[in-house]
Amino acid sequence: MARQNIFFTAGPAELYPKFETFLQEAVDLQLGSISHRSGQFKKIYQHTDEQLRALMNIPADRAIMFTGSASEIWEKIVLSCVEHESFHLVNGSFSEKFYKYALSLNKHAQKMAKPLGEGFSYQETEVPEYAELVCITQNETSTGVQMREPDIHKLKRSHGSKLFAVDMVSSAPNPELDFSLIDTAFFSVQKAFGLPAGLGVWIANEACLEKAVSLKEKGISIGAHHDLPTLWKESRNYQNPATPNVFGIYLLGKVAEDMNKTGIARIRKETEEKAKRIYKFFEKQEGYAVSVTNPDHRSKTVAVINTEGPSSEIIGKLKEKNLIIGSGYGPKKDTQIRISNFPANTPEQIETLINTIENI
Amino acid sequence: MARQNIFFTAGPAELYPKFETFLQEAVDLQLGSISHRSGQFKKIYQHTDEQLRALMNIPADRAIMFTGSASEIWEKIVLSCVEHESFHLVNGSFSEKFYKYALSLNKHAQKMAKPLGEGFSYQETEVPEYAELVCITQNETSTGVQMREPDIHKLKRSHGSKLFAVDMVSSAPNPELDFSLIDTAFFSVQKAFGLPAGLGVWIANEACLEKAVSLKEKGISIGAHHDLPTLWKESRNYQNPATPNVFGIYLLGKVAEDMNKTGIARIRKETEEKAKRIYKFFEKQEGYAVSVTNPDHRSKTVAVINTEGPSSEIIGKLKEKNLIIGSGYGPKKDTQIRISNFPANTPEQIETLINTIENI
Repeated sequence: MARQNIFFTAGPAELYPKFETFLQEAVDLQLGSISHRSGQFKKIYQHTDEQLRALMNIPADRAIMFTGSASEIWEKIVLSCVEHESFHLVNGSFSEKFYKYALSLNKHAQKMAKPLGEGFSYQETEVPEYAELVCITQNETSTGVQMREPDIHKLKRSHGSKLFAVDMVSSAPNPELDFSLIDTAFFSVQKAFGLPAGLGVWIANEACLEKAVSLKEKGISIGAHHDLPTLWKESRNYQNPATPNVFGIYLLGKVAEDMNKTGIARIRKETEEKAKRIYKFFEKQEGYAVSVTNPDHRSKTVAVINTEGPSSEIIGKLKEKNLIIGSGYGPKKDTQIRISNFPANTPEQIETLINTIENI
Repeated sequence: MARQNIFFTAGPAELYPKFETFLQEAVDLQLGSISHRSGQFKKIYQHTDEQLRALMNIPADRAIMFTGSASEIWEKIVLSCVEHESFHLVNGSFSEKFYKYALSLNKHAQKMAKPLGEGFSYQETEVPEYAELVCITQNETSTGVQMREPDIHKLKRSHGSKLFAVDMVSSAPNPELDFSLIDTAFFSVQKAFGLPAGLGVWIANEACLEKAVSLKEKGISIGAHHDLPTLWKESRNYQNPATPNVFGIYLLGKVAEDMNKTGIARIRKETEEKAKRIYKFFEKQEGYAVSVTNPDHRSKTVAVINTEGPSSEIIGKLKEKNLIIGSGYGPKKDTQIRISNFPANTPEQIETLINTIENI
């Protein structure tokens, strides 16, 4: 059966072109039934681990761990890395949720907030003296705002003793994040990796682990499920403490392997070119305006566009042609559209979308 | 491609016979791409919710919520339902883990422990006066010991003011649990529902919700990710706070629907008959002994059998014939085998397994 729709949504998103092939392999290998303690599973975990390290240049001393979702990792990072105080750069719904998770965990969470559509640069960011953890949302899915990698890196270098967490949920593997510098980062698979939801990926260094262990030694709860020391230990043996999403881990490894065959440099270049095409089009197209005015802060993977009329009109018209784009998020639901620019969104698909909007 | 192996493992397990059909439907419907905020997703959630209620006789005022795994629910139940003290019936690795989760969350956790292979009955169970939550593992996957439903119900009736949590991870939907009585229960889908891992199902009543809300009002952290009040609220609108495992929720609804077509009474009867067949065989077969001596405490879904020789021998010989059974768990790894008796394990498969063991 032919798939009817092409998705330009920010996640769940268009599936990776070879998704069905990889899924059939997983079914044929009976991966829904194999033991998560078996050598066969360990090899799958190891393969995914190695392909992700190659793709995103993750050093060997970092752990790569799997959870049920990226939101779960917000919680586990705060529990592992904060005794008293965290600091959050907030410019949209998801960075706000990260901040609110810290509050719910009874931490003294502080934030620097920006109006929707604005981003952060290194120069203007003042990190509170007592913050133990700095939380940055590299790509804010709700507003289409990115923080540039050099700004993130400079900020970390200026505050070397603090732990830095980078939410790259809707941009990984695109950002050229320096994983020898950043302490922890995470993403989910239903965005740029083009897979069904149900798996989060958590990358962390030994500084995070040491902090978690020291908190536990002080009698502070660091959580019970997927607590960092346990996840870490198991990951070193390519295992998970509980039964993980085996299908998801296998599929992620296959997609990462396929991306490595293409080469991350080429994927990034293509992403850059498609993003330019999208923004250039909407800058000139009557009835639309690019939401993020500072070009440096425009997301490369999720373009947010203001609409003159109600956004539901263009969304509905595109849907009639089987092109699915997203509405604005939260308060911007009716006045913005969001368009994903993930590796699964081919240049041809982007052209089709643009041409269709042009002719509506 | 023909699937090579038949799995009699306690989970991940043999997949439900129609799994591939349902998976193909999910692919054709592009469920990996649809928005988890869409009406289409809500209908999927609602369908799964309704089919589970019908199958397991879950009252309308109970919430049915989805998480990444059942282990995650251990944590969320303790955080939601315990201010100071929990009480755990422990007779194997999984009930012990539930207990240890409570300790990790800095609760005063108490346990009544039994030797491996023994179970609990109503009469002998003494619940500590100040326990707020009583945690029962209805089916202890590691030892093949069950607690009978009438004993669970009587215990709850004797301690009506305490919250009762029932782990039915490797038995649901088989136990005839009275959900108008039990406060909360949970399971995962890679056991008796015959699906790939990556989804936990949490059933809870308003007493749990009220306790969680009261703890939060007192300033006690009830967690941030999948905290009960948030999960509850979203579930009432057939939504999840974060992006859930959409594929898993869809597949679970289809399997539950198919089970409802067969009828739960017939599934339970068949499970009972297959269990009798298995236990009767091993009671008489030389070189084997049923681990759980009290017939009332023998699990209907996971049979644990002592082996005279190293268990790896019979496991290896069966594997040569593409029949996959489990080893003992933890300390019993080399001296026991574990055989699942889930709905996906047909009577014919059980006969094949028994005949093969007989002839080895």
